[in-house]
This record gives sequence, C-alpha cells and structure tokens, in this order.
Amino acid sequence: MDKVRMGIIGIGNMGSGHLSNIIAGKCPEIAVTAVCDINPERLSWAKEKTEGKAACFTDAVKMMDSGLIDACLIAVPHYSHPKLAIEALGRGIHVMCEKPAGVYTKAVREMNEAAKKSNAKFGMMFNQRTDCIYRKMREIVQSGKLGKIRRTNWIITNWYRPQAYYDSGAWRATWSGEGGGVLLNQCPHNLDLWQWICGMPKTVTAHLYYGKWHDIEVEDDVTAFVEYENGATGSFITTTGDAPGTNRFEITLDGGKLLAENGKLLVTELDEPEPEFSKKNSIPFGMPSCKTYEAQTDGLSEQHVGVLNRFAASILRGEQMVAGGEEGINGLLISNAMHLSSWLGKTVEIPFDEDLFYAELMKRVANSRRKEFFEGSVADLTNTYNTGKP
Amino acid sequence: MDKVRMGIIGIGNMGSGHLSNIIAGKCPEIAVTAVCDINPERLSWAKEKTEGKAACFTDAVKMMDSGLIDACLIAVPHYSHPKLAIEALGRGIHVMCEKPAGVYTKAVREMNEAAKKSNAKFGMMFNQRTDCIYRKMREIVQSGKLGKIRRTNWIITNWYRPQAYYDSGAWRATWSGEGGGVLLNQCPHNLDLWQWICGMPKTVTAHLYYGKWHDIEVEDDVTAFVEYENGATGSFITTTGDAPGTNRFEITLDGGKLLAENGKLLVTELDEPEPEFSKKNSIPFGMPSCKTYEAQTDGLSEQHVGVLNRFAASILRGEQMVAGGEEGINGLLISNAMHLSSWLGKTVEIPFDEDLFYAELMKRVANSRRKEFFEGSVADLTNTYNTGKP
Repeated sequence: MDKVRMGIIGIGNMGSGHLSNIIAGKCPEIAVTAVCDINPERLSWAKEKTEGKAACFTDAVKMMDSGLIDACLIAVPHYSHPKLAIEALGRGIHVMCEKPAGVYTKAVREMNEAAKKSNAKFGMMFNQRTDCIYRKMREIVQSGKLGKIRRTNWIITNWYRPQAYYDSGAWRATWSGEGGGVLLNQCPHNLDLWQWICGMPKTVTAHLYYGKWHDIEVEDDVTAFVEYENGATGSFITTTGDAPGTNRFEITLDGGKLLAENGKLLVTELDEPEPEFSKKNSIPFGMPSCKTYEAQTDGLSEQHVGVLNRFAASILRGEQMVAGGEEGINGLLISNAMHLSSWLGKTVEIPFDEDLFYAELMKRVANSRRKEFFEGSVADLTNTYNTGKP
Repeated sequence: MDKVRMGIIGIGNMGSGHLSNIIAGKCPEIAVTAVCDINPERLSWAKEKTEGKAACFTDAVKMMDSGLIDACLIAVPHYSHPKLAIEALGRGIHVMCEKPAGVYTKAVREMNEAAKKSNAKFGMMFNQRTDCIYRKMREIVQSGKLGKIRRTNWIITNWYRPQAYYDSGAWRATWSGEGGGVLLNQCPHNLDLWQWICGMPKTVTAHLYYGKWHDIEVEDDVTAFVEYENGATGSFITTTGDAPGTNRFEITLDGGKLLAENGKLLVTELDEPEPEFSKKNSIPFGMPSCKTYEAQTDGLSEQHVGVLNRFAASILRGEQMVAGGEEGINGLLISNAMHLSSWLGKTVEIPFDEDLFYAELMKRVANSRRKEFFEGSVADLTNTYNTGKP
C-alpha cells in the first residue's frame, strides 16, 4: 500500500475542507476513494471535486463495507463520533475523528475500548497540537527546566461567531444536535492543548451562560476555575460573543513564565526558582532576577494537513500520530466537568459521576429547542481555525 | 492659610515616603509640622529629616489636640484607620487616609458617618487613580462610546513579595495585625480602580489560598469571579507569590475593547457594536470590522504626590480631590466579599451580611498566629508601588 484509501464521512464545513486539502495534493499519501453524506447536494459537490474518483454513499456503514476504503475521516455532528468510530474500528478500518471525541465521556469510553481491541489506527483531529508555539510550550514545561506549574490562565475569547453562524445548520448550538456550545464546538482544541501542556485539573468550578450573546440554547460564555493535583490553579475564559476577542495563554511556573500571544511565545526564566530565592533573600522588596526572550520555534504549524499526513504515516509505516484517538477523552472530561459544575452550581471533581452527567445532559436534550429543518449551508473555513496566528 | 500644616501618623514605610516627598519640596502647599509614632527611632529619624521643624508625638490624639496641625495623614496598620480618622474628623482636622480604608466595612461605615458630620476634608490615598492609563480607561468607559461593559479581566500578579517582606513587621500578614493578605495590603489600589472604572460587582465567587507561597496565615493567592448588575462578568487574579508576575487589565465592551498592559493602553473600536452587527450580518463567519490604536494620554501619573497636592488644594481652595475618603469602602466591600466567599465556600452577594463577615474575621483574629514582637524595619519603597510602568 503506497496510499491510504480514505472515505470521508460528512461533507459539511470540515469534511469539505479536508477533501479540498487532499485533492489539492497536500496529503500525498492519501487518496479520497469514497465520500458519505445524507445531503445529495454535498455528494454532488464532492463527486465533481474528485472528478468522479470518489464513490458516493449516503450510509457510512455501507461505505465501510464497500472494500473501497482503508481509513475513514469522521466529520459529522458530535453525537455520532463514537458510534461511527466504533463501527469502523470493529471492521479494522483506521479512524481519524474530528473533535470533540464525543459529547459525553460514557460514549467516548466505549469508543476507546473499541480502539483498544482493534488493530486499526485511531487518531483525533487535534490540529492545533501541530502549532509550533504550543509544541514549544509543551516541550519547555515537560523539560522541567522552569520547575513545576503554579498557575495557568487562558483567555481564549477570539472564537467570535455571529448569529448567522448559528443559523447556518439545524444541529448547531442545540442540546440535541450538538450537545453544547462553545465548549463542544470551538474549545475542544484549547481544552486539549491545555491538558496536553499543563496536565489534567482535579477540580473544576465553572460559570456558564446559555444564549447570552446569541439566540441559542447552549453556552456561549464561560469562565472556569480549576485546581490541579499539585496545588496549582488555572482559569479558562471563553466566549463566541466577543469581537475581536483575545487569545492569551499564560503559564506561571516556579522558575519562570510562558506567554503565548499574538503568534509569539515569550519565555521568562528566573535565575533562581522563586521558592529558593525567597528562602535565602533578606531584602523585604527583593525580587529574583530573570530574563525574558522570544522562544525560537521550528516555525512549522501544519494544522489539519499535518494531522492527516502523520495519520497516513502511522498507517503506512507505523510512525507516531499527532494525537492518539484515546486522548480525545481528556479535553471532553474538562468540558463535561464545566457543564456539570454549572448545572449543579458547585465545584466538580474529576473524575465525576458520568451517569449523573449523562442524565443531566439528557434532560436538556429532551427539552431541546427543535429548529425547523432547513438546508445547512457550507462555509469556507479558511482562516477561521483560530490557530494563534495574529 | 497658604500651607496646610500636616501631621503624619505612622512613620513606617509609607509615612516615611510621604515625609520624604514633602521635605523634598514636591508638595509646596504642605508643611509637616508634626509626626507621630510609637517607635522612638522612627521619631528621631523624622526629627532629623525635618531639621527639628516637626513636633514629635507618640500619641496621635495628643497631636490632634496640639493645635499644630490642620490635617493628618494616617499611615498606620489597617485596623486603626477608621478609629484615627474618626478622632480627627470629630475635631475638624482634615484626613488623608492610607489604603485600605479599614479592614471591615462596619468600621468604615462609622468613619464615613463621621466624615459626613464633619466640615473637614476626607481623602483616600488612591494614588493609582492619578495614573494616566487608568484615568483614560475610565474616561473612555464613562463616555459610553464603546457601549456597555460585558467582561473585565484583571490579572494582577505582579505584587511579588518575598518571605523577608512578611518577616519585616510583626503586624504583617496576620489576621490580628493586618486583617488579610494580598487583598488588604497590595490590592486595595486595584480593587478601587476596578470599581472606579467598571462599577461595583453584584456577586463574588472567590478562591483564596492562605500561606500558599509564604509562611504566613493570610491569603497570598486569589482567583475571583464576579458578576455585574448588567450581566457582565469579571475575573480578578492576584498573588504575591509570582515572580515577575503580570499586570494586564482588559475590558471588553459591546463596541470594543480596552487593554492596559506594559504601560500602554490599547483601544479597539468596532465600526459597529457587536450586537447590531450580529443582527444584520448574514455571513456565518462574519466579524465586525474594527481598528486598534494606542490611546493618547496626558502622560501624567503624579501618584502619591499628586494625591497630597490635590488634598491640599481641596483644603485651601475647595478644589476636587483625587479620591474622596467615602469611596474607600467600595474596594473594601469587594475584598471583604472575596474573603467571605472563601470562608463560606460559596458565592456572596454585595451587599453581604457585614455582621457575619465581622464574626468570621474575629474568629481568625482570635486564632491569629502571634508573632514575637521585633523591631519593624523600614524599607525604601521607591519603585515598589506597581503603578503599571514597565
């Protein structure tokens, strides 16, 4: 096999973007041999785009059973991610899953179980992990040279979406269709990066506002506070309501500080870690000396294309993926904990009661505002992925 | 009267600084005619500094009754602020009070009552209100041209203090001596500016950590979340543990954003307020256009000297002060609400039960770690006032 034969499930905003990238030759080890969508117009678009080379399906399982694909890319609404991944993995078909891994962790655990039993590769589309800034942040934190983390602050309010965005698909921003708002749709990347770089929090206290800036039923404004096992604290502030918003990710450690903002990473290194300085210093207004510099990175941020290429390399040559599928549960645990904290009006510990979360979610699904069905529109997403570039 | 005859109560860190400024001729309408301290060494220092021109007292009330002063500057530990102010105001002596107004609002209300009944002037040493950046922020918010506030985020973690600072005075960082930690000693400026510029919050949910980075019994790490009457939210993150820390104050409004950081104020103005844009726009990934520029200020930040000069002008010519004494209660209400939220483990509404706060505070005072008394040292505070200059 010199090319992975890929079937794309869902030719909406994300699926169309992936298809376009592959057709444009950006993923030389992937060929799109099949596409699947319930919307005939999207299938026609894909057929034309692939010059008829991709077989068209309206049923994903039939596509999996067609013998035409080695791998599939799941880019349908969130609730269906685990179900489709389980179908594919059970058939030995490699899976690249769009974020989030699912809407609730119970289903994602089943997906991860299926992956464990399967020989097929399973990856998550955490394209922002390819960003040179975030990779560098993780590298520095993991190197231990700045000591242990004491504070993480991420103000990630530059996910602006106007009302027209929410009106562009019947499933959008509904409990029954999407299972959440900014935390489920826009922030999975940030929640994943946050835990990838800083580790998982232990407790979550979150203040969510539902339909605060838009005519929607799910959250579009979040301020969350977390505590980590080692006593560090963190804050995470997000919204789709602020224009133009902010993307500022700061990590304070015993030995310095990392600040990712405006497409740059500033590193502050203390000459001596603060706890040791404070022990020795005798000057009441003394302060540890430090230097601040811009981190040199490799400059690469291959994003979606990078994730797909490394997925193909993993299938073809056993190389490492950008993000293993099983890691998708981490960001979702944080996001579910934020919802649960808001619903219960109290601090939630991770792990939380996943049955309780599911029951609370289903209450909201049962009362979900059912939008009149209308044709979903497809937007060009280029430059909307909020990858930290200024 | 062409000069205000001033008595300084407390020749510690702050009192010494004020005395030095006045002696240096920076307050031409003020003469220091008396000083008061319980520590004979500090009195000797002041006597020498004033070339014997200031009478020395160990009892503040005797100084007030001496006929030597028109005004006093209160720069003693926090608990005594209201008591001394009430003594002075009752005698028609003008009062400039160091921050905070007091430790608990019950006492501050009594002080404000005394001020109402007195003909004397009453001001608070909110020197950071003189900062051109903060004045400009307030001016823009109050002008209404950016619409209503929706989010305020202040990360003010650059109040670093080493252990030696806390060991430099027996009253420092104890419930009985100071009544709190970073919220009572360092943050009164920021809490005052926050409410001066953005208005008072309605609810406060705060996570405080006591002696987290230092060997002290009071809080040295705070993350607080607030809600305003109009539905806006805010976060306030502070510590004396982080080095070098951050001072970044961001206000998001319907029509733009203000960002004070690194001694600059960046203003972002939307061409159309977000709510109006979102109503009209039909593009799913549309975004209101905007411009960002650095605000032009008058460049003046007269700090402590400015507060004293305007206090003198208020006494001599009825001009306006930088901050009326009665306004001191606002920041303290926020700070008390943060403590109460932490002690009760829940969200606190403003106004809160002030008797409950006092009772909870007194529990901690009763169990306060009593440090062995030792001579307080006096530090040169130049460049420690954290006035936002880089």
